[in-house]
Amino acid sequence: MKILLIGATGTIGSNVYDRLQQNHEIIRAGRNGADVQVDITDETSIRHMYEHTGNVDAVINASGSAGFAQLTEMTPDKNETAVNSKLKGQINLVLLGLPYVTDGGSFTLTSGVMMDDPIPQGASAAMANGGIRSFVTSAAIEMPRGIRINNVSPSLLEESSERIGHLFAGFQPVPGDRVAMAYQKSVEGSQTGQIYKVY
Amino acid sequence: MKILLIGATGTIGSNVYDRLQQNHEIIRAGRNGADVQVDITDETSIRHMYEHTGNVDAVINASGSAGFAQLTEMTPDKNETAVNSKLKGQINLVLLGLPYVTDGGSFTLTSGVMMDDPIPQGASAAMANGGIRSFVTSAAIEMPRGIRINNVSPSLLEESSERIGHLFAGFQPVPGDRVAMAYQKSVEGSQTGQIYKVY
Ligand SMILES: NC(=O)c1ccc[n+]([C@@H]2O[C@H](COP(=O)([O-])OP(=O)(O)OC[C@H]3O[C@@H](n4cnc5c(N)ncnc54)[C@H](OP(=O)(O)O)[C@@H]3O)[C@@H](O)[C@H]2O)c1
Ligand SMILES: NC(=O)c1ccc[n+]([C@@H]2O[C@H](COP(=O)([O-])OP(=O)(O)OC[C@H]3O[C@@H](n4cnc5c(N)ncnc54)[C@H](OP(=O)(O)O)[C@@H]3O)[C@@H](O)[C@H]2O)c1
Repeated sequence: MKILLIGATGTIGSNVYDRLQQNHEIIRAGRNGADVQVDITDETSIRHMYEHTGNVDAVINASGSAGFAQLTEMTPDKNETAVNSKLKGQINLVLLGLPYVTDGGSFTLTSGVMMDDPIPQGASAAMANGGIRSFVTSAAIEMPRGIRINNVSPSLLEESSERIGHLFAGFQPVPGDRVAMAYQKSVEGSQTGQIYKVY
Repeated sequence: MKILLIGATGTIGSNVYDRLQQNHEIIRAGRNGADVQVDITDETSIRHMYEHTGNVDAVINASGSAGFAQLTEMTPDKNETAVNSKLKGQINLVLLGLPYVTDGGSFTLTSGVMMDDPIPQGASAAMANGGIRSFVTSAAIEMPRGIRINNVSPSLLEESSERIGHLFAGFQPVPGDRVAMAYQKSVEGSQTGQIYKVY
C-alpha cells in the first residue's frame, strides 16, 4: 500500500515507520518532513500536502501537540494548542483528505491514555484525545467508498519515559513497537470505528 | 445555593430551572438571558458575565450548538461551530469561572449520547461531546478549593423528539425532568469527575 505517515520522525511515528516500511511504500510527512512538508495546524498546508501526494491507500497521523499546565494556570489561550493541533489538525486531515483516499482505504488517528486515566496538567490534552475518540466513533458510520477510520490510544511509551515519565506516575510504559502494531492492525485489517487502547 | 444557569430558556435548561428553582436562587443566562446576557463563544462576554454575577456556588451549562452535516459535506469551517460553542465555550466557562466559584462549589457541563452511540451527521457534535467528557474527567483531579466538576450526557429528550427525533432512529427518548435530576445530583451531591449518562 501507499501510506502517508504524518509525524514520521517522532517517537511513535518512527516506530510505525520501522514496522510498516517493510511491506509498504511510506510517504513521510511533518513540518520538517522527509518526503512532504505539512503543518497540520494549517488547513492550506494540509491541502498542499494532499495535492502533492495524490491518492494514497492509508493516512496515519502520529503528530500533534498540547499545552500542559495545572488547571488553575490553564487559560483559553493555552488550550488553543491542543484545539488547533491534536484536535482540529487531526480532524482536518480527515475532512480534507477524504477525496485522496482510495476505496477501502483508511485513516488512523492518535489519541492517548490520559483521556481515560487522567494525569496532572493534562486537561487540555485529554480534551483533544476525547474529542478524537468520539469523532472517530461517529465518522466511521458515515465514511464513503468503504473507507475506514480508527484511533490508536497509546499509554506512555517506554521511549518517552525519560522525557515525560514524571507526569505519568505509576503508569506502565509500553514498547513503541507494541504501539506500532495497533497502527498496523488499523491499516492492514478490516475493522473500523475502533479505539485501539495500548495501555 | 446561588446557581448560575447558562442556557436557562432552552429545552434542557428550562427543565433544570424548574427542578432547581424550588430550593435555590437561580441566575438565568443566555444570549437573550433573563438575568444576565452571555455568548459562550466569546471570552470577553464570559468575563463580563462573571463580573456581573460575582461569586456563585454552582455553574451549570445547558447551552451549546454544533453543525450537523454528512461527513462528506462536513468542512473545517462547519466544524468550527461545535469547536467554538459546545467545546471551547463550555471549557472557557470553567477556566474563566474558577475564581468566581465558592469553595466546595461545582461546575456541571453538558455532552450527549451521540459521543457513545453515533448518529448520521453527528461527527462534529460527537467530537465536542467527547472532548467535554475527557476534559471533565481530567479537570476533576486538579480542581482547587474542593470545587467539583461533572458532566451530564443526555440522550434525546422527549421534548426534542418532534424537532430532531428523525436523526435519532431507534433511540429511547428520555423525559426532560429525568435529565434535570442528573444536574441536581451534580450540584447537590458530592461527586466529582462523573459522567451522568441519562440514556
Ligand atoms: N510518546 C508518548 O508516550 C505518547 C503517548 C500517547 C500519546 N502520544 C501522542 O502521540 C502524538 C505523537 O507523540 P510523539 O511522542 O511521537 O511526538 P514527537 O516525538 O514529539 O513527534 C512528533 C512528530 O510530529 C511532527 N509534528 C509535530 N507537530 C506537527 C505539526 N503541527 N504538523 C505536522 N507534523 C508535526 C514532528 O515532526 P516535525 O517537528 O518535523 O513537524 C514529529 O515527527 C502526540 O499527539 C502525543 O500526545 C504520545
Ligand atoms: N435536547 C436534547 O435532546 C439534547 C440531548 C443531548 C444533548 N443536548 C445538548 O444540550 C445542549 C442544550 O440543548 P437544548 O436542546 O436544551 O438546546 P436549546 O433548546 O436550543 O436551548 C439552548 C439554550 O442555550 C442558549 N444559548 C444558545 N447558544 C448560546 C450561546 N452561544 N451562549 C449562551 N447561551 C446560548 C439559548 O438561549 P439564547 O438563544 O437566549 O442564547 C437557550 O437557552 C446542547 O449542547 C445540545 O446539543 C440536547
